[in-house]
Amino acid sequence: MDSETCRFRFTCAYDGTAYSGWQVQPDRPSIQKTIESTLEGILKNGQKIKIHGSGRTDQGVHAQGQVFHADLQTRMNALSLLKALNVRLPPDIRILDSAPTAPDFHARRSATGKEYRYQIWNADTVPPDRRLYHTHVTRPLDLDAMRRAVAAFVGTHDFSAFTANPQREVETTVRTIYDFALTAAGPRLLLRVRGNGFLYKMVRSMAGFLMRVGHGAEKPETVTAMLDAAGERTARVPSAPPQGLYLWRVWYHRAPPSFRKR
Amino acid sequence: MDSETCRFRFTCAYDGTAYSGWQVQPDRPSIQKTIESTLEGILKNGQKIKIHGSGRTDQGVHAQGQVFHADLQTRMNALSLLKALNVRLPPDIRILDSAPTAPDFHARRSATGKEYRYQIWNADTVPPDRRLYHTHVTRPLDLDAMRRAVAAFVGTHDFSAFTANPQREVETTVRTIYDFALTAAGPRLLLRVRGNGFLYKMVRSMAGFLMRVGHGAEKPETVTAMLDAAGERTARVPSAPPQGLYLWRVWYHRAPPSFRKR
Repeated sequence: MDSETCRFRFTCAYDGTAYSGWQVQPDRPSIQKTIESTLEGILKNGQKIKIHGSGRTDQGVHAQGQVFHADLQTRMNALSLLKALNVRLPPDIRILDSAPTAPDFHARRSATGKEYRYQIWNADTVPPDRRLYHTHVTRPLDLDAMRRAVAAFVGTHDFSAFTANPQREVETTVRTIYDFALTAAGPRLLLRVRGNGFLYKMVRSMAGFLMRVGHGAEKPETVTAMLDAAGERTARVPSAPPQGLYLWRVWYHRAPPSFRKR
Repeated sequence: MDSETCRFRFTCAYDGTAYSGWQVQPDRPSIQKTIESTLEGILKNGQKIKIHGSGRTDQGVHAQGQVFHADLQTRMNALSLLKALNVRLPPDIRILDSAPTAPDFHARRSATGKEYRYQIWNADTVPPDRRLYHTHVTRPLDLDAMRRAVAAFVGTHDFSAFTANPQREVETTVRTIYDFALTAAGPRLLLRVRGNGFLYKMVRSMAGFLMRVGHGAEKPETVTAMLDAAGERTARVPSAPPQGLYLWRVWYHRAPPSFRKR
């Protein structure tokens, strides 16, 4: 890096509805590419920008606290960059925080944990203004059964049965879930899960299985058996739809705390 | 009406983002026309359907409890009609309730009161998933001053200074506001107003003036002076943007109750 280049860390939120996902895909604009182009328009120095996210999010998935880093040849400070980005970015992508960071900080490799949330609307109809941010489930769900299944996911397990593509993982399919909670406010159900990392489609696979538990198609105890067997994912583990999923927060330097004091 | 015709009353919710408003406009589909076409597709008897709403909502305005009636030549019952509508309507329009009603029920003329809500997000950035349903205000708002102004609107007044077009009213610009409340949950501000009726753009005019009070550009006491003067609307009363506004509920047979016991 030359003398004017500085590494910046940004936190952003986005409504994933209109995008192909974080990463570039042929059919629709990606969030990554939109931010890169906007940064290039701000710097106007010919630098080709590449940003590095904490992880990819799929088409239709949202984020409240996605983190990315970028090496920028600029004398602008972090706050000026944040403001310039929010003026130029479309309103479905917002930069929430910005800071200069060490050259060895890496949004993905330095991450020590993440929280995802999954929102379900369990009623005959989903309010139109919530439809893009919740998965609509009409049949009643057994929350007690779902909570028992949720608890069985907590801990260190081989999650190969709950990922769409275990071969994609270079090293291991073992992950640690620090906490997992299901709360309900009327028809609105919220799954919150914190772990040291998540496999491809792991949250949507767990959410899909939990809905089957809620419908009585699977028993809560089956979660433990499937984790212990560490087999491949089967049709018993459907991917829950993308629009209920949010990448909520990314941690660095320390592990995510539990939701409640135990 | 022939022997097979029955009057039905429906309650619906919609996300107004993609529509020209309730009523037909040249540029975009209207909510009214979308429901009428869908009903014609369900009945398939050649009947030209006309539905009558409790009132129009403008482009970009949402509804949680809009009411409309229609005279339908059908042997389908109300629940079957509701289900058929929700299968065929786009997901940004949902039918919440349906019932057969008396031939003299009229969604607009029989209404005895309405509640509107206006949602404001008061922070540097509005979360992307809330942007279509809140008005974004970055500068801090003085909630105490706004609450004093809100209270001054309650009662029976001539609201000619708070409507976009007083000449549009055939009879009178006098209306009664039963209750008006401003609540805050973090950056999210909620205005709730119940009255016996509302003039054209009256809620957005009141919300626009309240934001000027919140910014210190107007004093709360000015509301009373402007109501008493009963003059024309001036530049001091801007229309607040449409996307924060919801037609929340319509009452029949009785007046809307107060939000709290007094």
